[in-house]
Amino acid sequence: MLSLDMVFDAQRVLKSIIRTTDVVRAYGIAPECELYLKPENLQITGSFKVRGSAYKIAMLSDEEKARGVVACSAGNHAQGVALAASKHGIRSVICLPDSAPISKVEATKGFGAEVCLVEGCYDDAYRKALELKEREGYTFVHPFDDENVIAGQGTIALEVLSALDDIDAIVVPVGGGGLISGIAYTAKQICPSVKVYGVQVAGAPSMYNSLREGRITCLDSVHTIADGIAVKQPGENTFAIAREYVDDIVLVNDDEVASAILALIEKQKMIAEGAGAAAVAAVMFGKLPVAGKRVVSIVSGGNIDVTSLSRVIDRGLRNSGRSSGLLIELIDKPGQLKDISRIIADCGGNVTGVHYEKGNTESVNGCFLRIEMETRDFEHIDLIMRSLRNEGFKIV
Amino acid sequence: MLSLDMVFDAQRVLKSIIRTTDVVRAYGIAPECELYLKPENLQITGSFKVRGSAYKIAMLSDEEKARGVVACSAGNHAQGVALAASKHGIRSVICLPDSAPISKVEATKGFGAEVCLVEGCYDDAYRKALELKEREGYTFVHPFDDENVIAGQGTIALEVLSALDDIDAIVVPVGGGGLISGIAYTAKQICPSVKVYGVQVAGAPSMYNSLREGRITCLDSVHTIADGIAVKQPGENTFAIAREYVDDIVLVNDDEVASAILALIEKQKMIAEGAGAAAVAAVMFGKLPVAGKRVVSIVSGGNIDVTSLSRVIDRGLRNSGRSSGLLIELIDKPGQLKDISRIIADCGGNVTGVHYEKGNTESVNGCFLRIEMETRDFEHIDLIMRSLRNEGFKIV
Repeated sequence: MLSLDMVFDAQRVLKSIIRTTDVVRAYGIAPECELYLKPENLQITGSFKVRGSAYKIAMLSDEEKARGVVACSAGNHAQGVALAASKHGIRSVICLPDSAPISKVEATKGFGAEVCLVEGCYDDAYRKALELKEREGYTFVHPFDDENVIAGQGTIALEVLSALDDIDAIVVPVGGGGLISGIAYTAKQICPSVKVYGVQVAGAPSMYNSLREGRITCLDSVHTIADGIAVKQPGENTFAIAREYVDDIVLVNDDEVASAILALIEKQKMIAEGAGAAAVAAVMFGKLPVAGKRVVSIVSGGNIDVTSLSRVIDRGLRNSGRSSGLLIELIDKPGQLKDISRIIADCGGNVTGVHYEKGNTESVNGCFLRIEMETRDFEHIDLIMRSLRNEGFKIV
Repeated sequence: MLSLDMVFDAQRVLKSIIRTTDVVRAYGIAPECELYLKPENLQITGSFKVRGSAYKIAMLSDEEKARGVVACSAGNHAQGVALAASKHGIRSVICLPDSAPISKVEATKGFGAEVCLVEGCYDDAYRKALELKEREGYTFVHPFDDENVIAGQGTIALEVLSALDDIDAIVVPVGGGGLISGIAYTAKQICPSVKVYGVQVAGAPSMYNSLREGRITCLDSVHTIADGIAVKQPGENTFAIAREYVDDIVLVNDDEVASAILALIEKQKMIAEGAGAAAVAAVMFGKLPVAGKRVVSIVSGGNIDVTSLSRVIDRGLRNSGRSSGLLIELIDKPGQLKDISRIIADCGGNVTGVHYEKGNTESVNGCFLRIEMETRDFEHIDLIMRSLRNEGFKIV
């Protein structure tokens, strides 16, 4: 049974394994409230997950430790278990679907785990992990539905409450619910007036639906850039704790998450993964009643691969009017590219790409010109489009 | 005359203005040494610069404070002066060349400064600032060549030495030399055995050349992505201090800086600007005799605009074999795109762009196909190229 003593014990045990991350004031992301961040993306392994798994492993009996642990994850949990097991000097086997990105496989190995690649999807890897548990006597380390894991995640609330006074609300991303149940339980024991809000993504609203229906429900599928919280079903323990202690859960969409990732890069110089930015997105886009309040958003992790990051940045630039594409219909006569280039340059736009495309233009000799530009904002884009139209160009 | 007392006094004065940034262990960036980072990119205003300007402003007489300050900068110094002046409740005017990015102008205004946009380049803005100093009686806050500014930057050494024992070396990016002279002076007073190394970029080796020639030299031009250290000439004070206390200065190139920015994103989840990543690049690419040593690299700032960041990431992905472009010469017959797509997919490459281009092919009916792909590494790219060649495709 989860208790505050367990959370304090976890804090003591974790001291030599994890970093005590800062609580930092975030300016300019959500001006209507006093926003702070708990950057667990700067945690060792790049995510809070190591807290829960390291405490779970520390609590194993000597006999269990001697046999080793097994876990199943393609993400942060894998790295947390691998590192925690290494720190305790015990064996860990992590089952991953063979479709897992090579970077995650390498990172997991890098923290000292044996990786077992399983043909198929996550569920296949999960079954394999359970099979190894039975056959080899390993202890299975659940990613969230385990009281020791939850107690480990609860240490974040202890750090937040000791770093900052008079907190009105803590905002927490929710996947399976391990993080929020640890934080909500701990915060409410120590300071019952603190609101604890959960955030899920619209493409994976498992805890959101379950709390609204008053029972655990299972999603058929999940789809979101926040892969760290793309969980189909909350745990038994986490659901029960969230139901009792969490004040509300709200949803954000993938575009809001992408904008929050970009805001964290620009304003805070830090990289968050999708799940890590969800709690910031909820505050940034006014999903919670926190105007005028002192709010702490948990940035749960930063393990986003650079290719995705690059896409998120491109999308964020486009969503904020700082890059733009125009498709212009041309009649086939000399000097048109020259005129268009001049107009865009005069307006202060910076051309980054030009493509001629054939297509179903009005004139048989016509073609389309696709222009990519760096721009300042949507007003700037409007100015450029107006100037082009004023000189007779047809923007499709 | 700079003294250790001034640095300690600066630490006391700055306490209520700046953040005491962590010293964090960086894993996986430079495995042959024990690398720590001092992330001043997470400093308020996104750079260490606020330390020097805030101490300089604090030391002004009441009469000087009443008149206000003027500075000239398109970057971190502008934001540092603006914030420091606001915190002291005094007026600040920042002269910027009118070509300065709108984001920097807005950020400077956001910290409370009056911005004076000057037609022309940096030198024109500098002249304007001096003119305002004369005419209005403002105090000019130099970006580096001022003992109070240097003392303020020296507080970083106090924090580093108190956070971590037995440091062998501190590695510092060098522009005008304010940061390194503050750190080298302070570190050598407290702990003379600590080596202090400077890092400049090959496109702006002003302090590097000056120290080698034993006199201050001036570059005709500077060209680098590390705009924060693109300085043509070191200061009188900073040169004299660097000459006495700095152990060595080395150079890195822009590609090495870009790779360091990418490594900081991937391994440390933090954004550094070019100058901020230079000291990491020097360690990462083995420019310094630090194998087996405990080394602290100063990450001086994180103010890189997202468009540049996006380019740096793209370049870093390409430099590490994680994205790739192929130009394939086709003879004009049906089914070729199908075959190429199949080969790439079978090899596990992910196509992100396809363009047909006419050109001077061997066959009159030929054309070029440009393919953009996400790949795992250079070996993976080789595999794809070999497979395409094996099926008869000609890669240009």
